[in-house]
Amino acid sequence: MPYIKIELTRENVTKQQKQLLISGITKLISDVLEKDPALTHVVIQEIDTDNWGVSGEQVSILREKGITGKLK
Amino acid sequence: MPYIKIELTRENVTKQQKQLLISGITKLISDVLEKDPALTHVVIQEIDTDNWGVSGEQVSILREKGITGKLK
Amino acid sequence: MPYIKIELTRENVTKQQKQLLISGITKLISDVLEKDPALTHVVIQEIDTDNWGVSGEQVSILREKGITGKLK
Amino acid sequence: MPYIKIELTRENVTKQQKQLLISGITKLISDVLEKDPALTHVVIQEIDTDNWGVSGEQVSILREKGITGKLK
Amino acid sequence: MPYIKIELTRENVTKQQKQLLISGITKLISDVLEKDPALTHVVIQEIDTDNWGVSGEQVSILREKGITGKLK
Amino acid sequence: MPYIKIELTRENVTKQQKQLLISGITKLISDVLEKDPALTHVVIQEIDTDNWGVSGEQVSILREKGITGKLK
Repeated sequence: MPYIKIELTRENVTKQQKQLLISGITKLISDVLEKDPALTHVVIQEIDTDNWGVSGEQVSILREKGITGKLK
Repeated sequence: MPYIKIELTRENVTKQQKQLLISGITKLISDVLEKDPALTHVVIQEIDTDNWGVSGEQVSILREKGITGKLK
Repeated sequence: MPYIKIELTRENVTKQQKQLLISGITKLISDVLEKDPALTHVVIQEIDTDNWGVSGEQVSILREKGITGKLK
Repeated sequence: MPYIKIELTRENVTKQQKQLLISGITKLISDVLEKDPALTHVVIQEIDTDNWGVSGEQVSILREKGITGKLK
Repeated sequence: MPYIKIELTRENVTKQQKQLLISGITKLISDVLEKDPALTHVVIQEIDTDNWGVSGEQVSILREKGITGKLK
Repeated sequence: MPYIKIELTRENVTKQQKQLLISGITKLISDVLEKDPALTHVVIQEIDTDNWGVSGEQVSILREKGITGKLK
């Protein structure tokens, strides 16, 4: 009966990327815990960059400063 | 002091349906737990069908396939 | 595909009361939104009274002061 | 590693108010728990007034009745 | 800046399984979204089987009836 | 009507620290948004260090390696 919530900043995540997250997590849960996928729900919540803060600063401001949070 | 979060897919839920969910849950909490309704908060969060997955598939895709999730 | 989270203080909620909450909410969702109950998940999360605050005070302190949050 | 979610009604919260919430909570967590701010994430979620209920009523209806929820 | 919450029933999930979920999801997020893993937080929340309901019934009751939710 | 959830690792947070978090956040919300504190609920959720991961590793393992997440 797992329920998985993914929260991330709203920055042009595509429909296909969302599908990859949903299928990938459902497969992981099935592989590790042997759960029936019909019972696994995955919810993706996109958050405006003004509404997410880390280190005390809005992500919208961090992005303006060139901090991407991406892999180098 | 209950707080209730309802997450469901964004599929034309009307203002009146939302009110029925809010009043119904608040009454249930009051009936079962004798809680003062002034302390019961209900939050409804609607999720785009691209952002909800079950059985590893996006609900938007399931809907295109004719799977409604409705009572038969 | 609804998912419902109920958060309340950990104050001797019985197994039967939990069942009444689960069945009552599932029925409400089915009545109002015509959702197949097989897709409705309800999760109850009990929170220690030291860990819940309202009006800026811990519920454990409010309870010592005789404030019950119950229906009068 | 704290994660803080603030849920409030969508009622013209400004970008600056959001920044004050993010910086204020991050500082509080750092002051009280000595956590490195780089590990503190704050997420603000705004909820439509039709989608929040208290005392069994939608906030949109409470606002029409002149109930503001503001400090007096 | 992703934050991922996994909610599942408390049924003897081992420390190693938890580690596999955490590393697997973090890798998935990094692969699909190119996010720096240092910014990805994964939280696992185990819920007592009395406190999770599906189809209007407590999971503890479903388990007694031999319904496992496992892959066949 | 704000609701605030604080999730942090279960590492000997005292009752007094919890009270400071609750009163501090309630005051911040009142100062920034002029919300009536009677409507502000704060919930603290402590997560076992095996159940929280960052950078793909369990916090329990990070702690064994001497990584504290504390201010330097």
